[in-house]
Amino acid sequence: MEILREIRPVRDLVGGWKREDKSVALVPTMGYLHEGHASLIKKARADNDKVVVSVFLNPAQFGPGEDLATYPRDWDRDAALCESLGADAVFSPEPAVMYPPSFEAEVSVPALSRVLCGASRPVHFKGVCLVVTKLLNIVSPRRAYFGLKDAQQFFILRRLARDLDLDVELVPCPIVREPDGLALSSRNSYLSPVERTAALALSQGLFAARRLVADGETGAREILEAVVRTIAAEPLARLDYAQAVETATLRPVARLEGECLVAAAMWMGRTRLIDNFIHPLE
Amino acid sequence: MEILREIRPVRDLVGGWKREDKSVALVPTMGYLHEGHASLIKKARADNDKVVVSVFLNPAQFGPGEDLATYPRDWDRDAALCESLGADAVFSPEPAVMYPPSFEAEVSVPALSRVLCGASRPVHFKGVCLVVTKLLNIVSPRRAYFGLKDAQQFFILRRLARDLDLDVELVPCPIVREPDGLALSSRNSYLSPVERTAALALSQGLFAARRLVADGETGAREILEAVVRTIAAEPLARLDYAQAVETATLRPVARLEGECLVAAAMWMGRTRLIDNFIHPLE
Repeated sequence: MEILREIRPVRDLVGGWKREDKSVALVPTMGYLHEGHASLIKKARADNDKVVVSVFLNPAQFGPGEDLATYPRDWDRDAALCESLGADAVFSPEPAVMYPPSFEAEVSVPALSRVLCGASRPVHFKGVCLVVTKLLNIVSPRRAYFGLKDAQQFFILRRLARDLDLDVELVPCPIVREPDGLALSSRNSYLSPVERTAALALSQGLFAARRLVADGETGAREILEAVVRTIAAEPLARLDYAQAVETATLRPVARLEGECLVAAAMWMGRTRLIDNFIHPLE
Repeated sequence: MEILREIRPVRDLVGGWKREDKSVALVPTMGYLHEGHASLIKKARADNDKVVVSVFLNPAQFGPGEDLATYPRDWDRDAALCESLGADAVFSPEPAVMYPPSFEAEVSVPALSRVLCGASRPVHFKGVCLVVTKLLNIVSPRRAYFGLKDAQQFFILRRLARDLDLDVELVPCPIVREPDGLALSSRNSYLSPVERTAALALSQGLFAARRLVADGETGAREILEAVVRTIAAEPLARLDYAQAVETATLRPVARLEGECLVAAAMWMGRTRLIDNFIHPLE
């Protein structure tokens, strides 16, 4: 497995693969890899000739006061996991490689980025759009893999790729959960044991909502009430939002019809957790 | 010569060329082609195996109250010129092909876009960055050709390509002028015969400034005074700006040192004209 820190060697490596007509996959990550990331790498490995994993803690997607400085890192474990899953290369640049001092460009999908998580994280998705545009241009993969825990991120990037005519297939992958239901996240490492138990309010609220949908409920108010009620019952939890939106515009819907996202975010102490499900249910 | 109106056929055509390892050039234009555009197509033709000319009057780079509705068009002449110069394909999409109703993405280089022409055209360069990003993603050329009459545009796009890791060489091409010195522009067609003569104040002011530079003057104030004085002497002309800036940042300089741009814009009735030269002189 190649470990690359600069842009030019990535282009050279991928360029060689393309001349041999190999299909190339990109799995973009911020490191501190867990089974959710592993599921992306496995799917990429199964569907493509070559797999590049990027490990880059992207400063541009953290706002002032967010957790860039404390975000967990474990490079040795990340590299070992990528190797064990059969990745062909890991691209892990320093921030100055991606954002040299003169850097200035901006890429965004403004309306989709203002709602849901964007309401409390105003610069986040702009940073995501920027780094993903750069990574796609550097690696120029045929397919790129994204986890649906970050569902809003996926729908924003889908819009971005369509609008900018990026010649890539963005592949959404299902949320991976702990046995008790908590969606995997690198940020789960912030939780104390007590918070870890209390954090289940989020997934349990969404599971309750999902059961209503499975039983035929389509009213957004009824469905979201199940989320709100479950989180309200947990004293350590504080709801950020619970919303039902259509995936094309991320605008709220009164009824689940067509492709919709039911998403929630919750504070557990200083840790912000997100979870969701997509309608129609799989 | 192929004439293409949709995105997919462009990708298919270029994809076929690339499998044969042909080098592909893009010449982006807004149509109503003149000898300036012809010089870009000729250079692209000389340096590459395949040449695509885009003819797209990009609504995104016109602000409210600007001249989108009256911008001159002559499709038949444009197509004939491209064919006569040996272009392999012309990509000329309808606006709805480039910007379908759900379109939302934005691409920009904010600081470089606020100065010079950007001060009086606040949305212009954002629209340029957007359409060029899209065209580069659609055609994925090895090289793209731009005229230096729009020098600020070139320096913004150079920054954009570096920042977004666009894998393309942007080739700047010299200004082409009428025999009397007026820089060629599709907008020259707006000028009445009297205005056409008076418009020479712009190029003559810049020629005077250029002579000072050739004689060893490096002080920006002295150099720009030659431009301002010449334009002030023409009653029909109204100066928009005359500035000397470094090309990397487009920030004003007191002395011409390193790569600098001396640029001016002038109103002639309702027509806005621009011209410039780059230091060191060729």
